[in-house]
Amino acid sequence: MKARVHIHPKPGVLDPQGKAIGNALKGLGFAGIGDVRQGKLIELDLADSDPAAARARVEDMCRQLLANPVIEDYAIEID
Amino acid sequence: MKARVHIHPKPGVLDPQGKAIGNALKGLGFAGIGDVRQGKLIELDLADSDPAAARARVEDMCRQLLANPVIEDYAIEID
Repeated sequence: MKARVHIHPKPGVLDPQGKAIGNALKGLGFAGIGDVRQGKLIELDLADSDPAAARARVEDMCRQLLANPVIEDYAIEID
Repeated sequence: MKARVHIHPKPGVLDPQGKAIGNALKGLGFAGIGDVRQGKLIELDLADSDPAAARARVEDMCRQLLANPVIEDYAIEID
């Protein structure tokens, strides 16, 4: 079973990496680019066979290690 | 229009960040974890109104700046 965790900075939290990417894109000539945010994507191979149990476990992993809930939001996808 | 770019290391490319996350999760007591890979997630606000044109532009951005096509794969989502 595969889990994908999408982690991105909460709205309102400063994202200097995203800003740098936005500026670099403008420097390359791309117009019409508004806000750019950079987050993380973590893919895990899990031994679980029950999707609900896997999601609960990944939720635990996010809270304990993968995301910083003060400044980051996360979304979990199981397939 | 919003675009999300998912960038992850190609299969077979060494991913030390992913390995470190996997080891940390095992250290926290999570069992049954196989391969862990870390990638990037970039969200862009675009002024385009045509989804096909937006996708083509983001494709260009990926090739020129966002992804390193030698070691990374990317997927584009437009909504």
